[in-house]
Amino acid sequence: MLRDRIRFQPLLEKLCTADEAASLIQDGMTVGMSGFTRAGEAKAVPLALAERARQHPLKITLLTGASLGNDLDKTLAEAHVLARRMPFQSDPGLRKAINAGEVMFIDQHLSETVEQLRTRQIPPVDIAVVEAVAITEHGGIVPTTSIGNSASFAILADKIIVELNLSQPVTLEGLHDVYIPSRRPARMPIPVVTPESRVGLPYIPVPPEKIAAIVVSEKHDSSAAIQPPDDETNAIADHLKALLLKEVQAGRMGYDLLPLQAGIGTIANAVLHGFLDSPFHDLKMYSEVLQDSTFELMDAGKLTFASASSITLSAEMYQKVLPRLAEYKHHLLLRPQEISNHPEVIRRLGIICINTALEVDIYGNVNSTHVGGTHMMNGIGGSGDFARNGYLSIFVTKSLAKNGAISSIVPMVSHVDHTEHDTDIIVTEQGLADLRGLAPRERAALIIHNCAHPDYRDQLQDYFDRALTRGGQTPHLIEEALSWHQALREKGTMRT
Amino acid sequence: MLRDRIRFQPLLEKLCTADEAASLIQDGMTVGMSGFTRAGEAKAVPLALAERARQHPLKITLLTGASLGNDLDKTLAEAHVLARRMPFQSDPGLRKAINAGEVMFIDQHLSETVEQLRTRQIPPVDIAVVEAVAITEHGGIVPTTSIGNSASFAILADKIIVELNLSQPVTLEGLHDVYIPSRRPARMPIPVVTPESRVGLPYIPVPPEKIAAIVVSEKHDSSAAIQPPDDETNAIADHLKALLLKEVQAGRMGYDLLPLQAGIGTIANAVLHGFLDSPFHDLKMYSEVLQDSTFELMDAGKLTFASASSITLSAEMYQKVLPRLAEYKHHLLLRPQEISNHPEVIRRLGIICINTALEVDIYGNVNSTHVGGTHMMNGIGGSGDFARNGYLSIFVTKSLAKNGAISSIVPMVSHVDHTEHDTDIIVTEQGLADLRGLAPRERAALIIHNCAHPDYRDQLQDYFDRALTRGGQTPHLIEEALSWHQALREKGTMRT
Repeated sequence: MLRDRIRFQPLLEKLCTADEAASLIQDGMTVGMSGFTRAGEAKAVPLALAERARQHPLKITLLTGASLGNDLDKTLAEAHVLARRMPFQSDPGLRKAINAGEVMFIDQHLSETVEQLRTRQIPPVDIAVVEAVAITEHGGIVPTTSIGNSASFAILADKIIVELNLSQPVTLEGLHDVYIPSRRPARMPIPVVTPESRVGLPYIPVPPEKIAAIVVSEKHDSSAAIQPPDDETNAIADHLKALLLKEVQAGRMGYDLLPLQAGIGTIANAVLHGFLDSPFHDLKMYSEVLQDSTFELMDAGKLTFASASSITLSAEMYQKVLPRLAEYKHHLLLRPQEISNHPEVIRRLGIICINTALEVDIYGNVNSTHVGGTHMMNGIGGSGDFARNGYLSIFVTKSLAKNGAISSIVPMVSHVDHTEHDTDIIVTEQGLADLRGLAPRERAALIIHNCAHPDYRDQLQDYFDRALTRGGQTPHLIEEALSWHQALREKGTMRT
Repeated sequence: MLRDRIRFQPLLEKLCTADEAASLIQDGMTVGMSGFTRAGEAKAVPLALAERARQHPLKITLLTGASLGNDLDKTLAEAHVLARRMPFQSDPGLRKAINAGEVMFIDQHLSETVEQLRTRQIPPVDIAVVEAVAITEHGGIVPTTSIGNSASFAILADKIIVELNLSQPVTLEGLHDVYIPSRRPARMPIPVVTPESRVGLPYIPVPPEKIAAIVVSEKHDSSAAIQPPDDETNAIADHLKALLLKEVQAGRMGYDLLPLQAGIGTIANAVLHGFLDSPFHDLKMYSEVLQDSTFELMDAGKLTFASASSITLSAEMYQKVLPRLAEYKHHLLLRPQEISNHPEVIRRLGIICINTALEVDIYGNVNSTHVGGTHMMNGIGGSGDFARNGYLSIFVTKSLAKNGAISSIVPMVSHVDHTEHDTDIIVTEQGLADLRGLAPRERAALIIHNCAHPDYRDQLQDYFDRALTRGGQTPHLIEEALSWHQALREKGTMRT
């Protein structure tokens, strides 16, 4: 059985326990681990590391693809293992440590981390820890349900720990397309020209002698806790479908649209789910994560191909998809996140990008990360990679939060992740604002009228009207611009 | 003489006066004009149009490459011709009309305008007005000192007015490289792999029958009003050179560095001028505008090649360069701004990007456009195209403005054009903050210590210290974050 999975014989000698493998990780090291949107992370070694740190404290810099599953970020944070963490996380426990200033969190565009590593602009990865379904005849590592940054971590690290996960189906092999851009100054174009373009290898190529330890595990990926669509997410999906239908009718694209990207989370998943009931067909995705909706659309014959960096499903959908992976495989491709999120490819393909905003201001600036302007939620993730370079940059949010105490449309966002230059369309359950070709004053009128909740519309209009008396390209009452956030902090509501 | 310049004989019939040509422009039209950083704009037709509008009011949407010279934006604004203007301007008169809300100004990343036009996401160009040095045997248009968006305007417009400028030297012919990305969904990689890559045509290919009028003009480009380097810009240049020397010593690049980009204006020009006295050699530029410093570096044998979208020089430098253009030509290339600023190429080449900030906050967010958070200065221009995708994103500014009443380093910028995700290095005359791989709290400590003026350092540190007590990834006192701008507005100074 193990020989089927470890096909380069000499590596069988590297089999060891998670404790033994974790002992290779020393205090002060930079460690690059697999894992992207809670899929395909190494599961046994980080746990062993946390266990050891409880007895013998140590600190590392942890780099991953994106968020880890199985509460690993929480466990590592609680064991005080993390001095530094990049480029993304989504764990409530780690979030707390980050906001307390205990963990230095570097929130990055997901396509950029390995560029900085490759050019040694950030400290090098000492050890890579990569979950795999198999090691090939020549020592190549076959990843599991995500690629993330694993390929570059493994290629750039001095040593590699492989976690061979026997619970991950071997049918995953052949799903991956590992392409690494060549080094500058002789870098060539990335040859991806359609979501289906296969341009690399189905494994991570490394010299087998760099594999210092192999640990066998059987733990499953965490399942996604996706909320089912509700009236508001359905309304958002409807507004969006109406917009895309107008694009088709205007002759800008066919009913197969352009490739779709959707950020992780309930709203984006619900929006894609809404495409089940739409006139669009032969759709393709070029995204960073594939959620339940991808497979629903495939099963319904709506979606013909999906390229991403990971697969993150609900427990129910895992049960359905994993046994039938061989069937889906011809319609799927997993890429390094550098390629799934690469500005070059996103701009070339002309992606329709759907990402979630925490709050949006009347001029279309978007906060995706910071609650109250100060406290980190998850991170910018790939939203910037896609929003900047896509054909259409769409941000979705419900117009209210916290039972109406918070308006998601505010006079000025308390933190900017995406500027007005990078936001084409804002959608709430109230309606949609198409901001293309509009100046800030025109954007404000539209966002207030179409997207704000009626409970806050007058209050926003009043702000805007008074700001207009001061003039400017982007009128504001600078002394009042963040007063809604101040009121929320002091009185618990943005309502006046 | 004219037959040397208009080599497609039937077009000689299209010769007419500026007034006649301008009469093709009707009320409500969208007009795309040549011109980028005050170089190569059509000069006679816009003047005739303004003249006519004074008698017979009309409004147009005006698209250009970037800013126009010869006070044309001012003249057009004063004649109330401009209903809408995109994607950049730098004229005090137009600025006033924009901030008064009289002209709707759409401030865009310079690489993106023609993407939106090509996909008809914004209204189509009815007429293109393009300055040329010649029309080829087959009717191709040879631009002058800039390309900007001229090629796509001409290709996409129904009609073209050519302004044949006899004062522009014919030696400009052969300098241009017109490449237009193919349409989606079949777009191929842009084959530019070095600054020297020649991938297109030396003229704008159009069906000659689209050329509706040819106007002869002799007016010169406006010369740049660049201030000479001073102690502060020299200090900024020195900090930057020390940083790049460290990059070389760390083995990240050779003494030929990676291709350089520098934004328009005095500080960026002075910084490049500083490279004259540096250990770097065989430098190349991949930029959007070439200023005096480019030719100084070439004359000194420091710079071997420069690619951009325009050439904008001081009066003195024009005198020197234009007669010797044939010599420089082998070391220069002008591209459409879509290509000079294309994310795909910028990321591939790994540009060192030097742009100017209006203000920077302690976390490294940058405001490049809005005075006091509300009033437009010029526009974001190409800074976002470069800062997002380059190898190094450097922002430079003097630490003080208005005789010390303004600190360029503030607790929170009043408008965000570039988020902390896109700013690697901040430089003032005080020093340099290398923000790569740092979390916001670490960035703040460095920016305050290294970049702020001593007059404001304690005041910034005090804000940061008090913000830290509230916690968060990006600590702020939300009720006080914009109080510096409020104080400036109310009391004329940020000093407490």
